[in-house]
Amino acid sequence: MSSQANQSACIPPLSFSSKATRTREQPINALIAQAMADPELINFAAGLVDSHTLPVDPCREMAQTILSDNVRGRAALQYETTIGLPELRRAALRHVEALDSKSATELGLTPADFVITNGSQQSLYIIGDVLVDPGDIVIAANPSYFVYTGTLQSLGAKVMTVPMDENGMDVEAVDRLLARIEREGKLDRVRFVYCTSYFDNPTGLTLSLDRRPRLLEIVKKYSKSHRILILEDAAYRELRYDGPALPSIKSFDPTNEFTAIACTFSKPFAPGIKTGYSAVPKDLMRAILDQKGNHDFGSSSLCQHIAMEAMRGGQYAEQVENLKAGYSKKLRTMLDSLDRCMPKADGLHWTHPTGGLYVWLTLPSSIDTSRQGMFAAAVEAGVLYVPGVYCFQPDDAGHVPTNHLRLCFGNVPAEKVEPGIEKLAQVVRNSLRGTGPSPVTSEEHGRGARATQSA
Amino acid sequence: MSSQANQSACIPPLSFSSKATRTREQPINALIAQAMADPELINFAAGLVDSHTLPVDPCREMAQTILSDNVRGRAALQYETTIGLPELRRAALRHVEALDSKSATELGLTPADFVITNGSQQSLYIIGDVLVDPGDIVIAANPSYFVYTGTLQSLGAKVMTVPMDENGMDVEAVDRLLARIEREGKLDRVRFVYCTSYFDNPTGLTLSLDRRPRLLEIVKKYSKSHRILILEDAAYRELRYDGPALPSIKSFDPTNEFTAIACTFSKPFAPGIKTGYSAVPKDLMRAILDQKGNHDFGSSSLCQHIAMEAMRGGQYAEQVENLKAGYSKKLRTMLDSLDRCMPKADGLHWTHPTGGLYVWLTLPSSIDTSRQGMFAAAVEAGVLYVPGVYCFQPDDAGHVPTNHLRLCFGNVPAEKVEPGIEKLAQVVRNSLRGTGPSPVTSEEHGRGARATQSA
Repeated sequence: MSSQANQSACIPPLSFSSKATRTREQPINALIAQAMADPELINFAAGLVDSHTLPVDPCREMAQTILSDNVRGRAALQYETTIGLPELRRAALRHVEALDSKSATELGLTPADFVITNGSQQSLYIIGDVLVDPGDIVIAANPSYFVYTGTLQSLGAKVMTVPMDENGMDVEAVDRLLARIEREGKLDRVRFVYCTSYFDNPTGLTLSLDRRPRLLEIVKKYSKSHRILILEDAAYRELRYDGPALPSIKSFDPTNEFTAIACTFSKPFAPGIKTGYSAVPKDLMRAILDQKGNHDFGSSSLCQHIAMEAMRGGQYAEQVENLKAGYSKKLRTMLDSLDRCMPKADGLHWTHPTGGLYVWLTLPSSIDTSRQGMFAAAVEAGVLYVPGVYCFQPDDAGHVPTNHLRLCFGNVPAEKVEPGIEKLAQVVRNSLRGTGPSPVTSEEHGRGARATQSA
Repeated sequence: MSSQANQSACIPPLSFSSKATRTREQPINALIAQAMADPELINFAAGLVDSHTLPVDPCREMAQTILSDNVRGRAALQYETTIGLPELRRAALRHVEALDSKSATELGLTPADFVITNGSQQSLYIIGDVLVDPGDIVIAANPSYFVYTGTLQSLGAKVMTVPMDENGMDVEAVDRLLARIEREGKLDRVRFVYCTSYFDNPTGLTLSLDRRPRLLEIVKKYSKSHRILILEDAAYRELRYDGPALPSIKSFDPTNEFTAIACTFSKPFAPGIKTGYSAVPKDLMRAILDQKGNHDFGSSSLCQHIAMEAMRGGQYAEQVENLKAGYSKKLRTMLDSLDRCMPKADGLHWTHPTGGLYVWLTLPSSIDTSRQGMFAAAVEAGVLYVPGVYCFQPDDAGHVPTNHLRLCFGNVPAEKVEPGIEKLAQVVRNSLRGTGPSPVTSEEHGRGARATQSA
């Protein structure tokens, strides 16, 4: 939590819970607010989806369909059960079957193993909440999705990390970490491994095929007195523009015991209906529903009807294709622009994702992309990104790398991607010039000299 | 949490958090599921709103309006901020101003003091979560809204209670309880007083006018090292069929420091849009938003646009009038039917609410309305209610009264109210006959003898 609001001197302060005092404001909120305030800024920061491709017409037609039928309309405006609309849970199961090319039986799943949540975030939150007591351990990649690592820390979790490489989370490092934790006598504190398995936020990278069943083997190996789960975050799964369609980690767990998979309509369809779904082990489901009952007794019935109608009527599949066409073009433009505009320098490189919404840029370690550093210059130049520091957990010495940044092309208009990268490249070039022996070429020096200012 | 699902012998169990192990399934979930499964049952249990009066046509037209405008439609399908749609927060403030007949300035409120949540339940949940550590004290009426007392217990709160009378929560008993807690040196553990100020769930009773500012005086008196809040649950406020329009407790707190008020669109409009709003002190708002950011980053944008359109276009006000007309008739029928059908017996009486969705029935103390008792007979007779035991906290000796029941006429068709009460009266009559010296009249004995069976 951020600092308390001022109170008049005679009014005593509120007494907050330990959890509230552990909770910090999510940096993304401030970044989204900033972007909404200044529409001129080229906003590579906020993980918003492309406003221009949102399915306004299909949603109007579906709302019309649902609310023209009195029986269905009433159901859509009444309370729904906590677990969610049965037809939507069935549709979600069919969708997972299709993506994994396995039958429900082979996957060990029935519609009763699916819960509908307010986006996948609520599912991630609740799964953390029902498993984690303060001091318990969750294993994640470094870097990781910072909203969730922040959530875990708010719940009191100790987030321990393993590196990422081009093949995603280093699962052998998970094995070594668990072995170390076991040697230290703390295995009983490990609750789950959090893994964004497709087009990761923030790196855009995907867990390779061979690492998927291997990660399951590893959590099974260390599930001794209690079960260590894998929490698979599949938010970006559908946004695949190139490369093979990989089966989920979940699909290698045919008895539905070691994996929970969290999915959403926000990225592949529309965030405004705030609907997600998760398939989870049966004992975890019971605990999730008890919490969700306390949160809200169930997600918006109207939104669930729209999601279900979209899956059933083909509007969902069509929207995914529309998005893929638009996003893949923007990703290509971003990667091409980075190639063309970024100065060549030792240690300056970026990821080459084949899906999702993000590219992850690594700068020479002398450059600080955080708010105190290059960030202000970027804002002044008219371009916004997420400083990489938010995405890392400190190492044992408390060190956090400061030379990374996340670029999201989600809601940046196609024609603004290249100008945005040009602005960013100029800021990077100026930063490189400002940090001792310059690694830039003379041509780039010349371009840098034309820049108006730098932080 | 309920008992764990069976796992095969070789699979170790999950290790749940303390919170998960403290959390029990909400009994209302099972009751709603039961009602949905058997449409023949006359369901006075579930707190559902009247399906037949849900605003299907207005919602269709509003969805059409919102999604016919491309700019607005995109906004409704994009992410919204965590605090919620500014126009909806402004409309909520105007609504509160109108209900309290005070200006925003007099109320000490601006739109920045309002947060939009997934129904009012999410607000109640988060306020509990940011204030309560295990062992902290929350004061509530006895009986109280059982979903929320269950939530508080799941958070680890010690729920301490004061009695209710015809004027609502006994606030002088709150004063005495706080004095006792102070004497015991535990005042620093008291977090807030939870009060449903209008047409209470489960009793239907309303906090009288003079008790409202008095409750504020009391929490101020005991706010010494820290502030003790009032959490005012105003879910049923708009459903007033008779009697004066009382100002909120919140309206007596012109500096917005001691009261949080939780309101909803679920009861006065439609649960299916799962939208609520709360006005809270500024330091509490900061803590709420940090948590809500972790829950879901903000409620469904589409639902917020519908709620806003309904408030702005008059559909909300019209729906409230429709509901009041329908519900007041059903309440009248229920009270008349109780008068006509219930046997006369010492200790058998019920509340006479002037709003809301509930009537609270007290039976002679020899009768057990809980699941183990009269409840099974009622289900067999085709009528469902909420056993009063769920609504009470145990007294110091661990005793919970078992001779009450909650009747909700919300979603029972008007023509089923009287037959439902007739069935219930028959069950009560049979129960009275089965409990020693009969307090019923000979005429009632005659009618009871014609009953087919009793538990």
